[in-house]
Amino acid sequence: MYLGRVIGRVVATHKLAGLKGVALQLVRPVDEHGESAGATVVACDTVGSGLGDLVHVCDGRESTYALPDPFVPVDATIVGHVEAFDYEGGSAGSAA
Amino acid sequence: MYLGRVIGRVVATHKLAGLKGVALQLVRPVDEHGESAGATVVACDTVGSGLGDLVHVCDGRESTYALPDPFVPVDATIVGHVEAFDYEGGSAGSAA
Amino acid sequence: MYLGRVIGRVVATHKLAGLKGVALQLVRPVDEHGESAGATVVACDTVGSGLGDLVHVCDGRESTYALPDPFVPVDATIVGHVEAFDYEGGSAGSAA
Amino acid sequence: MYLGRVIGRVVATHKLAGLKGVALQLVRPVDEHGESAGATVVACDTVGSGLGDLVHVCDGRESTYALPDPFVPVDATIVGHVEAFDYEGGSAGSAA
Amino acid sequence: MYLGRVIGRVVATHKLAGLKGVALQLVRPVDEHGESAGATVVACDTVGSGLGDLVHVCDGRESTYALPDPFVPVDATIVGHVEAFDYEGGSAGSAA
Repeated sequence: MYLGRVIGRVVATHKLAGLKGVALQLVRPVDEHGESAGATVVACDTVGSGLGDLVHVCDGRESTYALPDPFVPVDATIVGHVEAFDYEGGSAGSAA
Repeated sequence: MYLGRVIGRVVATHKLAGLKGVALQLVRPVDEHGESAGATVVACDTVGSGLGDLVHVCDGRESTYALPDPFVPVDATIVGHVEAFDYEGGSAGSAA
Repeated sequence: MYLGRVIGRVVATHKLAGLKGVALQLVRPVDEHGESAGATVVACDTVGSGLGDLVHVCDGRESTYALPDPFVPVDATIVGHVEAFDYEGGSAGSAA
Repeated sequence: MYLGRVIGRVVATHKLAGLKGVALQLVRPVDEHGESAGATVVACDTVGSGLGDLVHVCDGRESTYALPDPFVPVDATIVGHVEAFDYEGGSAGSAA
Repeated sequence: MYLGRVIGRVVATHKLAGLKGVALQLVRPVDEHGESAGATVVACDTVGSGLGDLVHVCDGRESTYALPDPFVPVDATIVGHVEAFDYEGGSAGSAA
């Protein structure tokens, strides 16, 4: 899992019933300093996040366990809102 | 999952029954600015995409849930057409 | 799996019952020389690790087998404390 | 999945019954221009490929669905021979 | 899967019964020329390898199929000893 910041949303057409109504967000992975730490991903949103929110994202097959139907072609899901984190030399809240 | 643009198609010979008739597309991962964001992948196409289309792609085991037979050796599938997306500082449609 | 050093902790709000009470740590992957070897990850902690501990981390679906409930959206778990390791040209303990 | 070119073969000793008789090839990932696109992998061969062949390779758990026994520790398999592919600005056959 | 060379071993404390007695090795991924090809990994050893051995390593969920208990948080396993490999322009044995 990794920290990420919601930087946008995606509107897409799906043909699969299991993906109807699942919100998709653009998430930029960030490190403990809030700096960009990898390529932007498209993640399902199960916690109702919005632009600018600090979240943690789960990858892979196991990311579908956050969805009502786990047998869908999804490989990244926003699992939780990050309220705060501490690290060597500093700490940050979700507004960091 | 990630955004991608269809840049071509692949014609391949398979020996596995489960892969007959599954279209394969060359997809270039792109970021929110439409810039290339990683190595070109070969993805199954379940939504009837064509050259230049903006799509989102699912990786891994879970990508097979978009196919009629999920027990096939496939690790990337075009899951949906992206109609539009918003991001910090801009927005784009599928023709972006 | 890879070696990592615990560099902090994450406080997050989850909506999923299976993730309640699961501690989350910030872990920096390190190589055999203790040098940073990749982007910081958020990992579940099943061994009671603390700041500065040298651990080994498991990725992916299989990382959930260390948790009480394996059907949760988790893709990285601290599996063990590293007491020592030897490598070509040197060796190190967990305090290295 | 990705395009690759067979650049060699591997002779290895296995202790697992499920891997006996499974051919292993060295495959170099290539992009749509035939240029190297990543680190060389060791892949099982289910289509009888040979040196120089252009193939497409599947990664991960799902790659084992191409094998007689899917419960083997294998994470990359040559799934098909690429006969031809088209892309923006060009096209290529398997001899490209 | 990829080629790797055993460069050390790891001594770790586990709380999980399924990991007791499973040897852990430090493995450096190498390419067909024996050059380093990625970050050092911690892999389970099911073939009794030792320092300097050339091996091939399987990643991910499927790597646990080489272990007595496949429901363990393990994502990399040494699957076989590489005796020799041929590639375009050369060949090498395990002592290469």
